[in-house]
Amino acid sequence: MNLGKRLGAEFIGTFWLVLGGCGSAVLAALFPQVGIGLLGVSLAFGLTVLTMAFAIGHISGCHLNPAVTAGLVAGGRHPAGELLPYWVAQVLGATAAAAVLYLIATGKADAKLGGFAANGYGELSIGKYSLTAGFVCEVVMTAVFLFVIMGATDRRAPAGFAPIAIGLCLTLIHLISIPVTQTSVNPARSTSQALFAGGAYLSQLWLFWVAPLLGGVIGAIVYKTVASED
Amino acid sequence: MNLGKRLGAEFIGTFWLVLGGCGSAVLAALFPQVGIGLLGVSLAFGLTVLTMAFAIGHISGCHLNPAVTAGLVAGGRHPAGELLPYWVAQVLGATAAAAVLYLIATGKADAKLGGFAANGYGELSIGKYSLTAGFVCEVVMTAVFLFVIMGATDRRAPAGFAPIAIGLCLTLIHLISIPVTQTSVNPARSTSQALFAGGAYLSQLWLFWVAPLLGGVIGAIVYKTVASED
Amino acid sequence: MNLGKRLGAEFIGTFWLVLGGCGSAVLAALFPQVGIGLLGVSLAFGLTVLTMAFAIGHISGCHLNPAVTAGLVAGGRHPAGELLPYWVAQVLGATAAAAVLYLIATGKADAKLGGFAANGYGELSIGKYSLTAGFVCEVVMTAVFLFVIMGATDRRAPAGFAPIAIGLCLTLIHLISIPVTQTSVNPARSTSQALFAGGAYLSQLWLFWVAPLLGGVIGAIVYKTVASED
Amino acid sequence: MNLGKRLGAEFIGTFWLVLGGCGSAVLAALFPQVGIGLLGVSLAFGLTVLTMAFAIGHISGCHLNPAVTAGLVAGGRHPAGELLPYWVAQVLGATAAAAVLYLIATGKADAKLGGFAANGYGELSIGKYSLTAGFVCEVVMTAVFLFVIMGATDRRAPAGFAPIAIGLCLTLIHLISIPVTQTSVNPARSTSQALFAGGAYLSQLWLFWVAPLLGGVIGAIVYKTVASED
Repeated sequence: MNLGKRLGAEFIGTFWLVLGGCGSAVLAALFPQVGIGLLGVSLAFGLTVLTMAFAIGHISGCHLNPAVTAGLVAGGRHPAGELLPYWVAQVLGATAAAAVLYLIATGKADAKLGGFAANGYGELSIGKYSLTAGFVCEVVMTAVFLFVIMGATDRRAPAGFAPIAIGLCLTLIHLISIPVTQTSVNPARSTSQALFAGGAYLSQLWLFWVAPLLGGVIGAIVYKTVASED
Repeated sequence: MNLGKRLGAEFIGTFWLVLGGCGSAVLAALFPQVGIGLLGVSLAFGLTVLTMAFAIGHISGCHLNPAVTAGLVAGGRHPAGELLPYWVAQVLGATAAAAVLYLIATGKADAKLGGFAANGYGELSIGKYSLTAGFVCEVVMTAVFLFVIMGATDRRAPAGFAPIAIGLCLTLIHLISIPVTQTSVNPARSTSQALFAGGAYLSQLWLFWVAPLLGGVIGAIVYKTVASED
Repeated sequence: MNLGKRLGAEFIGTFWLVLGGCGSAVLAALFPQVGIGLLGVSLAFGLTVLTMAFAIGHISGCHLNPAVTAGLVAGGRHPAGELLPYWVAQVLGATAAAAVLYLIATGKADAKLGGFAANGYGELSIGKYSLTAGFVCEVVMTAVFLFVIMGATDRRAPAGFAPIAIGLCLTLIHLISIPVTQTSVNPARSTSQALFAGGAYLSQLWLFWVAPLLGGVIGAIVYKTVASED
Repeated sequence: MNLGKRLGAEFIGTFWLVLGGCGSAVLAALFPQVGIGLLGVSLAFGLTVLTMAFAIGHISGCHLNPAVTAGLVAGGRHPAGELLPYWVAQVLGATAAAAVLYLIATGKADAKLGGFAANGYGELSIGKYSLTAGFVCEVVMTAVFLFVIMGATDRRAPAGFAPIAIGLCLTLIHLISIPVTQTSVNPARSTSQALFAGGAYLSQLWLFWVAPLLGGVIGAIVYKTVASED
């Protein structure tokens, strides 16, 4: 399939990841009495990937995440030459979603955006976890994420189930780590929200590129090592 | 299969969508101490589609939603001549469900129906979101819904999984957008509840036909464009 | 497979349905601060069926419910001569589970069993819904349940997914109707809990045989009519 | 595949089970206002198994649990000679996860670790359930767990779905039994948390080896008996 269409699919998929994941957090998590809480937000993030992986997996591979693309390149599953175009499409799609979410979220009299679901550590972590805790957490979570992605899409794994495994892995990652960093494991999702939240969130953005990319590459290489058939 | 039986299946399926989705909202969302909240209602809506798609997907295609039928016609997946009969069966099934739900919900001394899960904007939005926010939200949510439906039923997607992808996509849409419009993305579901809630809900019903139909057609066409193999 | 082993499988499966579904309700629904609520109980009921359908579907068909066996007989999917033996195994398995649950639940100083998750209407409905509301609700819920069971196990439906469709249908039914009757749709589950809850619960037990059996037969026949290929 | 790589996979998989399951309990269950509660923790435990079973099922079988390995040996599905190496890899992986979790959880000013999600009975049960209740509960839960594992991986069960059945069975087990013992059914998970929680938790650890191992062996043998085709 031609690269333009695949980038279009990545744009739309990452748009959905941010609109669904961050959107549920901003609009519904704290709704009085019946809010969906961190459990609902975790489910939402995972379902964005599950639904898009069934919808566009056969078009672009449905990465939706620069750390996933980097990990798959490191694991020998994706051509290195497409890394940058994929990253650009993902960040643009995420940013478009943040804009749409901003439009909807501000469409009421007493709109409160809070941190707009941006990621952070220290004072900007909703649980006030330190830079070190946040860094370790993001590296480990992204490493396992890529390990599961590599494994579930291995030709020896049951065919067709990868979107369920990968989507629900993202749900699980959020169930654990939202209190620590609001959970990134995805630099595109972090960038789009920091652009709108601004200020200190932007100055912490570096961590949500470095840690997920590092973790993603580690996870993919570990899988390759454990799973090799020699 | 003959059209009459397929319409019967659409009637029953849409009956279940409204009884399950709106029923869980009216009966269980706010139950003291142990209510299911917006998360439970979101899950219920999605599971009506997941269960019926496995039960009648092989009979009628399991649209259960005028915007889905319209989108599939626009996407070249369903004959245009069946649009109106499908719409009629869907609205009748939804209305029958609202009647059964009304019977059950009023079967207690201090029954409180509230808005009967009808959709609304402005003062009738449970989060008080404006007409513009509601319109944008309904268009975008339905567009992605049809995009996922088109993708998950593409012959290149894994066979058999579409009911999971599509049902959980509806769950996700509700996790994001119940606070904005009580989530429609389905004119049949909006019509049945507005008929019972009456008053201002009926005068806002136009939006929940226009926005989902517009979004559904856009989503289907975008998928067709991104996914074409030339 | 010989009948004895199939009955053994039904005994164990129904044991799990009651231990898991009613157990989660009695032990975990109202736990202070972190209780699972009606949403968790709904999920638990559905997962008992999902897990057992994968584990013993190939042995006994995994009915776990007299209304399911009756519906499948009415729908031409199961031999009528096995109706009674299946019912006996199901009621015995359910009762054994209630006994184990009673043993565990009373193993603490301030044990409060409440209604032991028994079904009821009127004063014994946790939402105080009337006999009529309860009857209608149980008939309709069981009818759709059997409709989905017949459809998801139709040879034209995707192979292998029926346990997911059927299990999550039971989850959905609970999301809607726990407030009305504590949800039966299963006379074995109602009988075991009424035996331990005693008193008025026993005198209301008739409804939770009549309504589910009636609904189950209706649902199976409706499916057969809508789905026939002539 | 060579034993070393399979043990590596078991190490990583059990690492994920403890980091995900106990991590969600320690970090997110009681988060103010939006905590995931016992329902979220139950989901997290199940998803660790679901995700890893898709990722490494084809490498090591994905036991992640000494009781599972023991049950599969008893059920004739795994060579007895690998029991001890599997146990060692599982306990080491669990302990590594507890260390990482400790590092993250203490990375904030007012960190409260509570029981660090360790298992217990009597005064150490979060619901104050007695030793007897805890023992019976752990035996029965693990027995059904192995019954489902044996059934879902039977060659007559639908291929590819076992990770879903088994993962969600672990979710279900937690939905029922967290209040009783904080749910073990897994001696590796109990050992790692007791090592960090220390004190009385260590002196109760024996139960969380004896009961799950006993239950696991019983469940596997019962399945074998009910399912045999003679």
